[in-house]
Amino acid sequence: MKHYNCKEELKLIIKDYPFLCKICKKEKALIEIPSQKIKACKNCYNNFFENKIKKTIEKYKMIKPQDKVGVFLSGGKDSSTLLFVLKKLYPDINLQAIFVNLGIRYYSDKLEDLVKNFCKNLEVPLFIYNLPEKEGYRIDDFIFTYFKNKVCSACGAIKRYLFSKIAKELELNVIATGHHLDDTVSIMLNLFFQGDFLGIAKLQPSLPPLFPNQVKKIKPLYTTPEKEILYYALLNEIPFENFKCPHADITPSKKIKELLTKLEDENRQIKYQLLSVFTKKLIPLIKSNYKEEVLSLCIKCGELTSSQDKICSRCKRVELLEKIDNKTLELTKEEFEDYIKNLNSNWVLIDLKNRENLLNESIKKLKRFFNSYRDKHIFLTASEPEIGYLFTLKLRKLNFKAYNIKTV
Amino acid sequence: MKHYNCKEELKLIIKDYPFLCKICKKEKALIEIPSQKIKACKNCYNNFFENKIKKTIEKYKMIKPQDKVGVFLSGGKDSSTLLFVLKKLYPDINLQAIFVNLGIRYYSDKLEDLVKNFCKNLEVPLFIYNLPEKEGYRIDDFIFTYFKNKVCSACGAIKRYLFSKIAKELELNVIATGHHLDDTVSIMLNLFFQGDFLGIAKLQPSLPPLFPNQVKKIKPLYTTPEKEILYYALLNEIPFENFKCPHADITPSKKIKELLTKLEDENRQIKYQLLSVFTKKLIPLIKSNYKEEVLSLCIKCGELTSSQDKICSRCKRVELLEKIDNKTLELTKEEFEDYIKNLNSNWVLIDLKNRENLLNESIKKLKRFFNSYRDKHIFLTASEPEIGYLFTLKLRKLNFKAYNIKTV
Repeated sequence: MKHYNCKEELKLIIKDYPFLCKICKKEKALIEIPSQKIKACKNCYNNFFENKIKKTIEKYKMIKPQDKVGVFLSGGKDSSTLLFVLKKLYPDINLQAIFVNLGIRYYSDKLEDLVKNFCKNLEVPLFIYNLPEKEGYRIDDFIFTYFKNKVCSACGAIKRYLFSKIAKELELNVIATGHHLDDTVSIMLNLFFQGDFLGIAKLQPSLPPLFPNQVKKIKPLYTTPEKEILYYALLNEIPFENFKCPHADITPSKKIKELLTKLEDENRQIKYQLLSVFTKKLIPLIKSNYKEEVLSLCIKCGELTSSQDKICSRCKRVELLEKIDNKTLELTKEEFEDYIKNLNSNWVLIDLKNRENLLNESIKKLKRFFNSYRDKHIFLTASEPEIGYLFTLKLRKLNFKAYNIKTV
Repeated sequence: MKHYNCKEELKLIIKDYPFLCKICKKEKALIEIPSQKIKACKNCYNNFFENKIKKTIEKYKMIKPQDKVGVFLSGGKDSSTLLFVLKKLYPDINLQAIFVNLGIRYYSDKLEDLVKNFCKNLEVPLFIYNLPEKEGYRIDDFIFTYFKNKVCSACGAIKRYLFSKIAKELELNVIATGHHLDDTVSIMLNLFFQGDFLGIAKLQPSLPPLFPNQVKKIKPLYTTPEKEILYYALLNEIPFENFKCPHADITPSKKIKELLTKLEDENRQIKYQLLSVFTKKLIPLIKSNYKEEVLSLCIKCGELTSSQDKICSRCKRVELLEKIDNKTLELTKEEFEDYIKNLNSNWVLIDLKNRENLLNESIKKLKRFFNSYRDKHIFLTASEPEIGYLFTLKLRKLNFKAYNIKTV
């Protein structure tokens, strides 16, 4: 796992330009502002970046002085940069950081450590919610359901529920999320492709509470391009994780994000242009024609839902997990020896040493290698337990009965 | 210039499948229906293809038995296939083919020959409109205006005007155009990116006449993917030109078309899905909210325009051409010797032999080679006059004063 708080990455974006900052004309230019193609000094880059966010916050009246503002940290650059900038712009505001440990093995705990250090240094109080401890399941468990190949979707529903629940617990008025320009536009375009116009109308920079006990949701990075956030995070040594989640799928909106970035080569303003079409033309058109969505409270958890059967999507997903008898994905050597007693000889133990590069190969090659064990329980050992676990998840997604043996 | 009426191309799409056609289960399967991923025999492919078009025509009541239907042939696969299928589906209808010779040197005349032969074999009457002869200018002349790098846009306005003018001259009730699924969806998406919602609403499969003396415009290939047209044209040996126009730009909607084709890898239905979002959700929403566009008659040519100054975009473009004093792009050797008499020594003669591959190189390399002659009149000779002319156009787009000398 790679932490991006190091000087190495910074070297790639900092250039030794032989001229002065185009903004202050005093300091040496050392970094480009991506959306402007202007070379600036560190100070002017920061001012430009922070001012844009400040303007967005003020334009949409996102934060009032008496608000208690929660920022859910994922460990990634977007949410951490958001917290950093909010603290810098509004030092007197009541800021609360939150981290949800989703119980993703070899991933969530590392993120928790990272976030703890970050908040300590930034002097922002941090609330940690441990999903496995509090609710008895982890996101990894979805590998046993039909969500195995769309874990992101299940995880999203769980997180939306937790946002709302934790906001109430901590008495937050406002939740600020790190959605940036690239996210917003690609999600909007993806919803457009699916014809989900109501979904598009909900993607506003500031979403007032829908019910009295609900929280307001704001997106201060709404008009900030992703690349500018990355540069800012590196420039200001904000620690973040860039190692992708083992469940990360190639979602349609990620694919669309890539394609938009390609269109950007020819039209630098394409993302802003699209955002403007959505917010100034399409959303007003949708709002003038569509009826308000009928919302009710979930009969299981009490959170809002638009589902007709009054069971929210989070509860439907959690119900699936409750039906799983055996959630074993990982065993110690001792547990393994015990476990195989009930399997007759219908199992195989595979040492992945010298084959670990298979992890980066195509699905086809992976399948070809394991296909002869299709009907057996497959126990894996690797040079590091993390690698064995990544194999286990990948094989489970392909419907193999794989397990990781923690040898180290 | 490559004609696609040859057997060579066909070999690439015809496969020797070791099973029977999945539709009739009698003949050998030899070609895939792209949108269905079904392997069929030639007869079933044709039936599938023609039936889809027939259904579209019937669904939108595009053609009545007494209509005189005009098809403007470009020489490309789409319009020629359309004419071919209309003739096959409705042998008794009053069909009229039209070809507009746009005066694009080394291009339009070849297309005219191709189209003449095609119509003769198909036994459909052909009307030829020669733009340079009738109106005194050719599309190439736009190279002298600020449209030099967007000739397609100027040409489009001219063609729309001619469609309407010729339709009246020939007393057509209906014009059928070869716009297919890929065209339609990428044009719609491009208009969406530009926020041109009125433009989207106009992209209907059947557009009734807007004024009493106007013609109805229909798009029978509206739901047919481009690839299926290509396969049909090859399978039925419809002659078409696949050599691109020397003015062809990479327009935004072409770029979007490419990207949609990439998204298709993961979602085979994406283009149909998008068409449905546009036609069933967005267009009705637009129509329920927007006022009708105010149209008037152009004070110059009498055709419809939405322009406030009542001069249509075709007439504005033609006005630009009228201001050009010298439209010389090409000279015989004798004309050249005469021409340089007035240039003092401010000219250079360049033999392109051994440098003709520069035509396929980057703009940068082309510029680098010619940059020292930036202020001079550049006369070019090449192994074939066509090649010299392509260089001339490319250099003119880069603001060089280039001329082709017809040596052969």
